[in-house]
Amino acid sequence: MKLLIINGANLNLQGKRDRGVYGCESFDEFIPRLQQKYADLTIDYYQTNIEGEIVSALHSAEGKYDGVLLNAGGYTHTSVVIRDAISAIDTPVVEIHISNIAAREEFRHTTLIGSVAVGSIVGFGLNSYVLGVEALKLYLQ
Amino acid sequence: MKLLIINGANLNLQGKRDRGVYGCESFDEFIPRLQQKYADLTIDYYQTNIEGEIVSALHSAEGKYDGVLLNAGGYTHTSVVIRDAISAIDTPVVEIHISNIAAREEFRHTTLIGSVAVGSIVGFGLNSYVLGVEALKLYLQ
Amino acid sequence: MKLLIINGANLNLQGKRDRGVYGCESFDEFIPRLQQKYADLTIDYYQTNIEGEIVSALHSAEGKYDGVLLNAGGYTHTSVVIRDAISAIDTPVVEIHISNIAAREEFRHTTLIGSVAVGSIVGFGLNSYVLGVEALKLYLQ
Amino acid sequence: MKLLIINGANLNLQGKRDRGVYGCESFDEFIPRLQQKYADLTIDYYQTNIEGEIVSALHSAEGKYDGVLLNAGGYTHTSVVIRDAISAIDTPVVEIHISNIAAREEFRHTTLIGSVAVGSIVGFGLNSYVLGVEALKLYLQ
Amino acid sequence: MKLLIINGANLNLQGKRDRGVYGCESFDEFIPRLQQKYADLTIDYYQTNIEGEIVSALHSAEGKYDGVLLNAGGYTHTSVVIRDAISAIDTPVVEIHISNIAAREEFRHTTLIGSVAVGSIVGFGLNSYVLGVEALKLYLQ
Amino acid sequence: MKLLIINGANLNLQGKRDRGVYGCESFDEFIPRLQQKYADLTIDYYQTNIEGEIVSALHSAEGKYDGVLLNAGGYTHTSVVIRDAISAIDTPVVEIHISNIAAREEFRHTTLIGSVAVGSIVGFGLNSYVLGVEALKLYLQ
Amino acid sequence: MKLLIINGANLNLQGKRDRGVYGCESFDEFIPRLQQKYADLTIDYYQTNIEGEIVSALHSAEGKYDGVLLNAGGYTHTSVVIRDAISAIDTPVVEIHISNIAAREEFRHTTLIGSVAVGSIVGFGLNSYVLGVEALKLYLQ
Amino acid sequence: MKLLIINGANLNLQGKRDRGVYGCESFDEFIPRLQQKYADLTIDYYQTNIEGEIVSALHSAEGKYDGVLLNAGGYTHTSVVIRDAISAIDTPVVEIHISNIAAREEFRHTTLIGSVAVGSIVGFGLNSYVLGVEALKLYLQ
Amino acid sequence: MKLLIINGANLNLQGKRDRGVYGCESFDEFIPRLQQKYADLTIDYYQTNIEGEIVSALHSAEGKYDGVLLNAGGYTHTSVVIRDAISAIDTPVVEIHISNIAAREEFRHTTLIGSVAVGSIVGFGLNSYVLGVEALKLYLQ
Amino acid sequence: MKLLIINGANLNLQGKRDRGVYGCESFDEFIPRLQQKYADLTIDYYQTNIEGEIVSALHSAEGKYDGVLLNAGGYTHTSVVIRDAISAIDTPVVEIHISNIAAREEFRHTTLIGSVAVGSIVGFGLNSYVLGVEALKLYLQ
Amino acid sequence: MKLLIINGANLNLQGKRDRGVYGCESFDEFIPRLQQKYADLTIDYYQTNIEGEIVSALHSAEGKYDGVLLNAGGYTHTSVVIRDAISAIDTPVVEIHISNIAAREEFRHTTLIGSVAVGSIVGFGLNSYVLGVEALKLYLQ
Amino acid sequence: MKLLIINGANLNLQGKRDRGVYGCESFDEFIPRLQQKYADLTIDYYQTNIEGEIVSALHSAEGKYDGVLLNAGGYTHTSVVIRDAISAIDTPVVEIHISNIAAREEFRHTTLIGSVAVGSIVGFGLNSYVLGVEALKLYLQ
Repeated sequence: MKLLIINGANLNLQGKRDRGVYGCESFDEFIPRLQQKYADLTIDYYQTNIEGEIVSALHSAEGKYDGVLLNAGGYTHTSVVIRDAISAIDTPVVEIHISNIAAREEFRHTTLIGSVAVGSIVGFGLNSYVLGVEALKLYLQ
Repeated sequence: MKLLIINGANLNLQGKRDRGVYGCESFDEFIPRLQQKYADLTIDYYQTNIEGEIVSALHSAEGKYDGVLLNAGGYTHTSVVIRDAISAIDTPVVEIHISNIAAREEFRHTTLIGSVAVGSIVGFGLNSYVLGVEALKLYLQ
Repeated sequence: MKLLIINGANLNLQGKRDRGVYGCESFDEFIPRLQQKYADLTIDYYQTNIEGEIVSALHSAEGKYDGVLLNAGGYTHTSVVIRDAISAIDTPVVEIHISNIAAREEFRHTTLIGSVAVGSIVGFGLNSYVLGVEALKLYLQ
Repeated sequence: MKLLIINGANLNLQGKRDRGVYGCESFDEFIPRLQQKYADLTIDYYQTNIEGEIVSALHSAEGKYDGVLLNAGGYTHTSVVIRDAISAIDTPVVEIHISNIAAREEFRHTTLIGSVAVGSIVGFGLNSYVLGVEALKLYLQ
Repeated sequence: MKLLIINGANLNLQGKRDRGVYGCESFDEFIPRLQQKYADLTIDYYQTNIEGEIVSALHSAEGKYDGVLLNAGGYTHTSVVIRDAISAIDTPVVEIHISNIAAREEFRHTTLIGSVAVGSIVGFGLNSYVLGVEALKLYLQ
Repeated sequence: MKLLIINGANLNLQGKRDRGVYGCESFDEFIPRLQQKYADLTIDYYQTNIEGEIVSALHSAEGKYDGVLLNAGGYTHTSVVIRDAISAIDTPVVEIHISNIAAREEFRHTTLIGSVAVGSIVGFGLNSYVLGVEALKLYLQ
Repeated sequence: MKLLIINGANLNLQGKRDRGVYGCESFDEFIPRLQQKYADLTIDYYQTNIEGEIVSALHSAEGKYDGVLLNAGGYTHTSVVIRDAISAIDTPVVEIHISNIAAREEFRHTTLIGSVAVGSIVGFGLNSYVLGVEALKLYLQ
Repeated sequence: MKLLIINGANLNLQGKRDRGVYGCESFDEFIPRLQQKYADLTIDYYQTNIEGEIVSALHSAEGKYDGVLLNAGGYTHTSVVIRDAISAIDTPVVEIHISNIAAREEFRHTTLIGSVAVGSIVGFGLNSYVLGVEALKLYLQ
Repeated sequence: MKLLIINGANLNLQGKRDRGVYGCESFDEFIPRLQQKYADLTIDYYQTNIEGEIVSALHSAEGKYDGVLLNAGGYTHTSVVIRDAISAIDTPVVEIHISNIAAREEFRHTTLIGSVAVGSIVGFGLNSYVLGVEALKLYLQ
Repeated sequence: MKLLIINGANLNLQGKRDRGVYGCESFDEFIPRLQQKYADLTIDYYQTNIEGEIVSALHSAEGKYDGVLLNAGGYTHTSVVIRDAISAIDTPVVEIHISNIAAREEFRHTTLIGSVAVGSIVGFGLNSYVLGVEALKLYLQ
Repeated sequence: MKLLIINGANLNLQGKRDRGVYGCESFDEFIPRLQQKYADLTIDYYQTNIEGEIVSALHSAEGKYDGVLLNAGGYTHTSVVIRDAISAIDTPVVEIHISNIAAREEFRHTTLIGSVAVGSIVGFGLNSYVLGVEALKLYLQ
Repeated sequence: MKLLIINGANLNLQGKRDRGVYGCESFDEFIPRLQQKYADLTIDYYQTNIEGEIVSALHSAEGKYDGVLLNAGGYTHTSVVIRDAISAIDTPVVEIHISNIAAREEFRHTTLIGSVAVGSIVGFGLNSYVLGVEALKLYLQ
């Protein structure tokens, strides 16, 4: 089982920015820990600040991965093209958020992505990714 | 570790109603399977169609349980009092939805509960409850 | 043919409250008159002020009644759970209103229930129930 | 007792258009059947695609008919002038809809006519007209 | 100086309908009185219930009349085509209302016509037409 | 017959500001011309830039004047207190606007004042005041 | 003089929950203190988390009490049925809030209840109930 | 191949009104030029200012024409009945606009017609009709 | 203990205007009665129709008074500057309304002032001021 | 005559994704077919998933091409920068959509691009591009 | 070069109120410091809490000053009359705000004044005035 | 002191596009002039049309520059990710706009960036950048 984690804008700063909201662990620390925990799976990681590159990454995932964990960051609330990319591929996509977006600013309450994802996991810090892996394992059985 | 699952209105019909959306397994079948999977935990189950009884159940959970999985059903979108009850207690509450509410009618896109819960798990069928247990285990460590 | 009338909040005051809007006849007087008029049918009557009990009453109606006349009163405009209960059962439900809700306050113009009912009969006083029985007879033929 | 049925735009296609929504029987078949069922009443029928002719028909009904069944079709949702015509006459008008407009597109959920009609009957197919006749009979007693 | 009064839907009932709002004098009485008062002017009168005929009347006014008094009735609030017709002709059009539309239902507060008219006179009963004639006299000087 | 003209904010600049919209004649020139035209009436004039002073002027008008012409300028669209002052006095108030407010910015389309005035005259330049005097003469007969 | 205090959802937690907002005194402590202060009055107390039971309590108050203090808690902002119950009875109802709801979340700014109550007292902590008793005493004189 | 062009309100003034927006050529000049260009097709032309006559024209087109070019003019933005007429017939309808409605007033940005047409061609002056003929030729192949 | 009552626009007409809504007693009669009832307190009274003078009065109250009762009249619904003035001073301000603003026009349902006041007392006629004094006494203890 | 086709996000999947909506032919097949059909023209093709690269492509088109066909895909509904780029260049741009966006989700009904394009062609499948070429040919004559 | 600073409501409290937002320096301290820094310019200062006096001050500035720095305080968000005054004069006006209004309450995000000012300087504390002087110097060159 | 200017989409066309709005000087001319004026500072310049590259540029600025002038162009109104990037770094960011966005289209009135910037300078042409440098100098002292 091969999974791809796609992280969107500003997630390269995880562990450094606004630690009260996002926590202190960076993805450089977290991803190896996740890969170790799920040593029986292949888990690849991709991060970009560019909306269109998330679209391309989703396109490329088709056929190469069994599932995608997508945290589109701030694009979650405005991106029609990422929504369209998820719809366009057959690979199941799980929407992930580190913080509880429903408890933040009004404009973060809308997600264009949630409705075309398999499901969403929101608010558990980096554990949202762990739960996302579990979710895909259950889904793909 | 003691957990309480609270299910709101119409969830007693799970497995019978709208199977395309909610799946075929009832809670009478699912809960024992869940309890067996997590035999090291105590998992209690409570269902009611009455909004105010969900409020009372949340009040009672405090001090008796380490965490709550709450699927408020249709009350999710309109209930200020359940939101207030979650805020009023210290016990962590995880919001659960069987179906992907973001992919359904407009009025199901708003959740008054999500912003005061620890986090939300949405759209994985009954597996949302399995992931909810995992989420509470990670959260309570 | 067995029919169930479910009346929601405040309808126990019918005949006493706001007679200009609702008329003077109480359900204690009206229901026997209705049963007499349709002596060939079984018409049962249930009233509750509690939203969740309307949900339970709808659940129970399935298999026991051929059709339901539902006047949810003030819950008409806000209740997702009653809507979900109507959708969840196979028994046909006709929405009934005594007063012409379109001629009253703005918040009474929205009905969450109408769209999942078979149809609606609005504004004919207690005769709305008579027309509801006629409607179910025509529908069930 | 003399009744007038006024049908608005596109209702001349009844029985031919969108049969899943509107059913298969045309008004050429239905009206004689209705007149036969209520042989003790005079039931006249008028259909026009033009908004202003509905206004004129309502004006003319005053003094000539005891009641009107009005299905304004698509004008229901936008016509101030038909609303004003109903208000301007003393003849009671019952609003009729074949389909359940609350279950269709958002713009069909608003009715400018309902609030000035005696009442509304919505969603029972052509039986809505039968129920409308019953409603006027009860109302005019 | 030649003026045309165009009256829209339901204004043929003036003097008969809702006298508290519109007053008791009909146009059959008022127009001769107005023509007599302004014997030096030619004042023609046209009434129709049909939106498109108001459009045609405005088209025909061009070149034949020096000014138009238009009371579009209920079409005031919804008609793009009447607005377009006023814009399309060079003849000055004054918007007239008998009742104070700002003091009535919400949907009567919007006028699509006012912004393309020379000006508006609202709320003075049938005297609004007298003031409209005065306004055109002042405007055309 | 005694009339009072009350002009609100910025109308002291009439004739100087934005001549394309408001024309070139100042009130220093116009008021004497108006008084001369209606030599049989007493027409007083008051201008202030302060909202609360318009309120006070309306209060003082009661008992002293038979009618008021009020052009509240920019306060038209936002002032609850001027509206309340008009409602509070028995003296009839006619709303006046020099420019066609319906043809300008969106925020000028709303008038809080119109609904409590006797009527409104909008868009005829300074002639709006002439028509206002005519309107009050007709109204007070 | 007999008064009834009706408290809605979550008010059983008063003194325990969110003390910064609601204060530290519970109703078990406050009510006896209030009864003692107004020893010449009968003051009864009822609390429920269930919306429909508030409706029933209001119905029962009629004839038994001279006035009601109602703090509907979170139902304040959404409950049509409580509003209808207040309208349906003749007993005067005063709306009470412990916290200043206008200073909290947007959804707490709307009250469906205020417009049918005699008046509202908002934001004085438990003293809002003291002021409510005073208000009813003044009102009932 | 037989095509029908239906033009709505005010399009009889094409070539005369607002030439900056609509151009200078009238339909009396354009239609013969179009017919000549597509001499192998039958192209009929119908114009009316009356909404309901557009509805009737669409009804009549069924079976008589292979396709319709419809420019409903100002009715585009408000007409539910024209929308319903397009849905009711099997003949393909192409929506045509001379001017770029998206670049004009806000109320012209909504089209009720576009969603039930085969497609839309907007903003190319009278060439929009030429492109509409091309579109139907491609569509009908 | 020194208190200041600040009354805004149109409240100088109390007792004269709209007696069904506001009652018959003027402030000239009421204030002495209030001062007599609370002879142990100093109660000063200030009324102005000018928004900015309410701002200045609030500024001046600081240090001179222990509390303020503010009825801003129509400014309640629109005034950011009065809100800012209340926030800017340390003196506690209680919002007072004579009529039940929630039961009146839509634009009276919003208060910009309530959220920065200590609390609000609404709808008890002039008794709202009596209750306001009681509220400040309780608050200042 | 040199034309440039710019395709935005996800259009590289044309022919593979959602064939019910977009059809089965890919651009790899379609573009050569189009170039062959218009052998007298130069038609270049550019596709990118990145919003800012569409902006750059539009900038580069100026001076190099006589016209642009732009299908911005999902960026159509949200992109201010593409709108600004079209405004910034003199090269005429025609807006193209394969599917009928007016018949899809609400958020696809808004186009920020249409108002600055020469015109729009919507809903004819890949034939929209053929019609776009025709449109530019007519426009550039 | 002569400049006028106009400060609106509550700015007389600068340095005393809400120091976290507005800072500690009063205008009594700041203005002399500013005049000293720009000793080659004449900088006058005017503050008022009354909206209409800001209007009058703007009128008076014309011809007497080369530019105006205007901080209208809370009137910024609601005042049509100040907007009209700025439009009515030829003197350039720069909008100034001490705090970052975009980072505060929703109702402070709208400015009616910005669109008619030369430009806006927002959020730099009292330095916003320094930058405003620089802006006018650059603008007037 | 090291400053970075980041310019977003379409700003590479400055001096060429829409000169009435943006002026005639290009950044190739302006930046050297600015650097010369502030020879004691280091001022670097970066322009990109790609939203995600603005995000990356902001990330890179941290630690390398003392302040950033950001003109995000059309992304100002829609970009959550640029807002998040500004929040994520400690380097102060000043929002810059050449034109007065409040005086342009409605969709340009919203800024997602302003509320997380230190402050905003809007509408002074290229001088907005000069004022931005001054603002950062004052801020960083």
